[in-house]
Amino acid sequence: MAKIVRIDMGAKKITQEDAGKYTPYGSRGFIARFMKDEVDPACEPLGIHNKLIIATGLLGGTMTSSSGRLSVGGKSPLTNGIKEASSGGTAANDLARHGIRALVFEGLPEKGDQSSYVLVIDGEGIRLEVMDDLRLVGAQDTILRLREKFGDRAGVICNGPAGEYMMRGAGVVCASVDSSMRFAARGGLGALMGSKHVKAVVIVPSKEDRVEYFDKAAYTEASKEYQQMLVDAYPTIQKSNQLYGTTGMTKIVDELGFLPTRNFTRGSFEGVENICGEKMVELIQARGGEGKTGVACMNGCMIRCSSIFPDENGKKICSTVQYENIALLGSNLCIDNFDDLARLNHQVNDLGLDAIETGAALGVAAEAGLVKFGDGPGFLKLMDEIRAGTPLGRVIGNGTRVTGEVFGINDLPTSKNQAFPGYDPRALKGNGVTFAVNPMGGDHTLGNCYGSRGQVPPLATEGQGDLSRNTQVQMAALENLGFCIFARSYLFKKPELFTQLVFGITGQQMTVDEFWAQGTETTRIEREFNIASGISPAMDRLPEYMYREPLPPTGHVFDLTEEEVLKGIV
Amino acid sequence: MAKIVRIDMGAKKITQEDAGKYTPYGSRGFIARFMKDEVDPACEPLGIHNKLIIATGLLGGTMTSSSGRLSVGGKSPLTNGIKEASSGGTAANDLARHGIRALVFEGLPEKGDQSSYVLVIDGEGIRLEVMDDLRLVGAQDTILRLREKFGDRAGVICNGPAGEYMMRGAGVVCASVDSSMRFAARGGLGALMGSKHVKAVVIVPSKEDRVEYFDKAAYTEASKEYQQMLVDAYPTIQKSNQLYGTTGMTKIVDELGFLPTRNFTRGSFEGVENICGEKMVELIQARGGEGKTGVACMNGCMIRCSSIFPDENGKKICSTVQYENIALLGSNLCIDNFDDLARLNHQVNDLGLDAIETGAALGVAAEAGLVKFGDGPGFLKLMDEIRAGTPLGRVIGNGTRVTGEVFGINDLPTSKNQAFPGYDPRALKGNGVTFAVNPMGGDHTLGNCYGSRGQVPPLATEGQGDLSRNTQVQMAALENLGFCIFARSYLFKKPELFTQLVFGITGQQMTVDEFWAQGTETTRIEREFNIASGISPAMDRLPEYMYREPLPPTGHVFDLTEEEVLKGIV
Repeated sequence: MAKIVRIDMGAKKITQEDAGKYTPYGSRGFIARFMKDEVDPACEPLGIHNKLIIATGLLGGTMTSSSGRLSVGGKSPLTNGIKEASSGGTAANDLARHGIRALVFEGLPEKGDQSSYVLVIDGEGIRLEVMDDLRLVGAQDTILRLREKFGDRAGVICNGPAGEYMMRGAGVVCASVDSSMRFAARGGLGALMGSKHVKAVVIVPSKEDRVEYFDKAAYTEASKEYQQMLVDAYPTIQKSNQLYGTTGMTKIVDELGFLPTRNFTRGSFEGVENICGEKMVELIQARGGEGKTGVACMNGCMIRCSSIFPDENGKKICSTVQYENIALLGSNLCIDNFDDLARLNHQVNDLGLDAIETGAALGVAAEAGLVKFGDGPGFLKLMDEIRAGTPLGRVIGNGTRVTGEVFGINDLPTSKNQAFPGYDPRALKGNGVTFAVNPMGGDHTLGNCYGSRGQVPPLATEGQGDLSRNTQVQMAALENLGFCIFARSYLFKKPELFTQLVFGITGQQMTVDEFWAQGTETTRIEREFNIASGISPAMDRLPEYMYREPLPPTGHVFDLTEEEVLKGIV
Repeated sequence: MAKIVRIDMGAKKITQEDAGKYTPYGSRGFIARFMKDEVDPACEPLGIHNKLIIATGLLGGTMTSSSGRLSVGGKSPLTNGIKEASSGGTAANDLARHGIRALVFEGLPEKGDQSSYVLVIDGEGIRLEVMDDLRLVGAQDTILRLREKFGDRAGVICNGPAGEYMMRGAGVVCASVDSSMRFAARGGLGALMGSKHVKAVVIVPSKEDRVEYFDKAAYTEASKEYQQMLVDAYPTIQKSNQLYGTTGMTKIVDELGFLPTRNFTRGSFEGVENICGEKMVELIQARGGEGKTGVACMNGCMIRCSSIFPDENGKKICSTVQYENIALLGSNLCIDNFDDLARLNHQVNDLGLDAIETGAALGVAAEAGLVKFGDGPGFLKLMDEIRAGTPLGRVIGNGTRVTGEVFGINDLPTSKNQAFPGYDPRALKGNGVTFAVNPMGGDHTLGNCYGSRGQVPPLATEGQGDLSRNTQVQMAALENLGFCIFARSYLFKKPELFTQLVFGITGQQMTVDEFWAQGTETTRIEREFNIASGISPAMDRLPEYMYREPLPPTGHVFDLTEEEVLKGIV
């Protein structure tokens, strides 16, 4: 049976137990149920009673393509509610092969204990090591140093300086195959990790594969069928996912008019041609060197959506620039130069910051006059302030709400204190519903209606509530498994495969409807946690200015009725 | 009938209406009921839907001693809940004599409108004037300039630079008879005033007294009886209130062990002899010059609890240092020099900041290593940062929560995001109940159990819930009238006088019990507003460290049962 490993950061004591009743749940599903049982909803997010949970999906450690995402959760220091964020990289598969479903960091180091701790999982067992030389080291160097010490194939989960400073914009970093950074970015979970002085988790690959199957044959059959779907779709995958990753959508979003631009005051960016996916690929191909597309973040992935963006000399600037980065660090800041964008993206990553939260905070900082829109080097200087922990840097690193509060800006693109991702909800109204009602605020994964724009037009005032709710439910069900978003789109063609894969692992027999119902249950547990934590239904809304100020070029405000919005509540 | 004056800051339109159903309510009672009817609880505090309400008490404008306090209210930018704060000074009496019960500032100036507005009330009527030369001028100079222009006897309500920057630690300033500053300090109402670009309200005294009485003879009879009580008590008043104001309690609180010291980590201060009331009076008397005790903040006051603290050359440093200033700006920062304390107090005042919120934020800043405890000049330098609007200054000006968030300090002496006043709740447990459950968070006026320590010992674990609740109810009922705290203590000897005074003004006939019941009703309206605004009952608690870390010298934690705390809910 999969194990839960508890690490008491006060007593520095490590204990293991069977996953027990949590066995049927992975990732977000695990985190919601575990937190319901063990975390006081009203506790202080950076206090002694919160827990940092790192969990694999149900399929973690299998060789099924693209199923090895890592989930990180806890009570969010940003939203003050429940939070799960997930990441690519190798660590989830590494943990699962050690037979571990979840790591749970509990308690706080004693006052006066200033050490940085690394949890090491290897053939000798599980132990905490003090590694003070990693204190405030950037996430990129932290990965490189730990892989130098523990081997190139070691899984690494780590915190950047932002999380160590306990900035609420900090995410948790997960190393990819090629030692670049992937992110469980949102909700300030890096600050939670920082409060517990956990600088990193290192997982030396297990010699023995400890993934347990209820019926391995059944699992393998379903997995093969799914992988065949990927093989069948491979020409498309090569032309789209492998080339552009998520960046291919930039120009579409711009044309539809909801590309966050100039601190969410416009939905279309005049410099879009210079920061779109096509431009990225053109530059990568022309510059060569370390630059490439079609990079896998986890072993065994057939989709390989990552890329490495190089400078003019072919030297790597950033891996991997994604759509959300382009939207929040590019158009939202009016940066129309891909080199500036990639450099900013890399600095944000290396600091261990959430690019969405930070991009939105930088937009607010520009609105406040601290830097000029479009001034790439100016924004990069602010990254130096964050790294140095200056007052200004600490403000921005704490995200959009704190930046707005400090600099007297009231109109903030946030919901439940979390910044909006790359979809202005005035012109993609389904996402407005999701941002308003979902348990984690402005979020791009929990119920993103972008992919269903053929089904309900982005500007329509009806149907958005149902669309958002259904999408939220499906995503919550799928989060159990550990699949990445690209894999899901192929799997959706035959949802029975989800249930067959789950059966192969856990032995649970369920219909597709019952599978989706798990998503409903997860979301409701999260919502109940939030209400008990003090996040009342009064907070199920967007910022006031979005109901009032039209967004060019569509000229739309967020004009759904309250009734329509509330339909989105799961 | 008393008037309500509405000032639409968007259209710059002023309208008047009868107080109507609000006629029986003044001050906090008025504000609670008006907000229930007119302010969306879930609105953004600095957004277009919040309203800034300035109200007199029912007895405003009468010549009854000490009954002219001014109330300011709105949805708090600090706590996000309902807020009323009150101030001494002359303005409430001035407003009432113009026949005005309340000013209600609505809406926001249009985007791009950077003007500073002053509402002028004089013989010619009520109008908004643009006075951009007052922008970011300190509160003290603002009062002096406006009185130079409109006459020495003009009532002045104004905002300091902190409020204009929309800092959440900003209060609203009210000029006293001698043009020194008094404060409706708490809850960040200065930021609300700043959001509406209202720099000041000037009230040129009305030639005609427009205060209306239902039965002036009955009123006068009750008022005379009350004033006779003050005359009878005058020897005591002279020896205590007139000499020390509230500062006389400093050494008592220190001995009892709940004097906030070193960022609320101790309850007793070794330098207390240098910052207590006795020391203040000794220095005032020895230095002479502009220094004096027994100063009245409003006309007709027989208690005259204010003082002017002079420097070694007899030049005024600050008027008036009170107990809360000594606790939060003195012992809490380990400042043991009265000159440093008075200079810091004056700077806080002139910036238009709440001394309690700011003192607690400075304690957190010292905890974070930004300045050394005890370093008076160091703390004064931070005042310069606030005045200049630097990132560091803006952080501290935004109060304790923001300062803690930005600098990574989790243990904060706050409840509902508002800093605790000068009573560590671990050793004055009744105040812990009040801080936890009252609608406005850490507050020194809404249910302060200090005065009842003979009735329920400060360290007792039983009886505190009832004591807190009863005190909250009484204070809420009394807030209707506009009496200051010192006057109340004499009135309590014959509570029928409250009802007789109310009858004389409004014609309402009620028993003493019915009078107190109004306090219950006010508090419940406030609590309901909060719940609808998103402040859930989950927030009815103190910071976690106070349940865990003993406070020297008593060694007590906050150890009331949850049941006992919840008894405090009105």
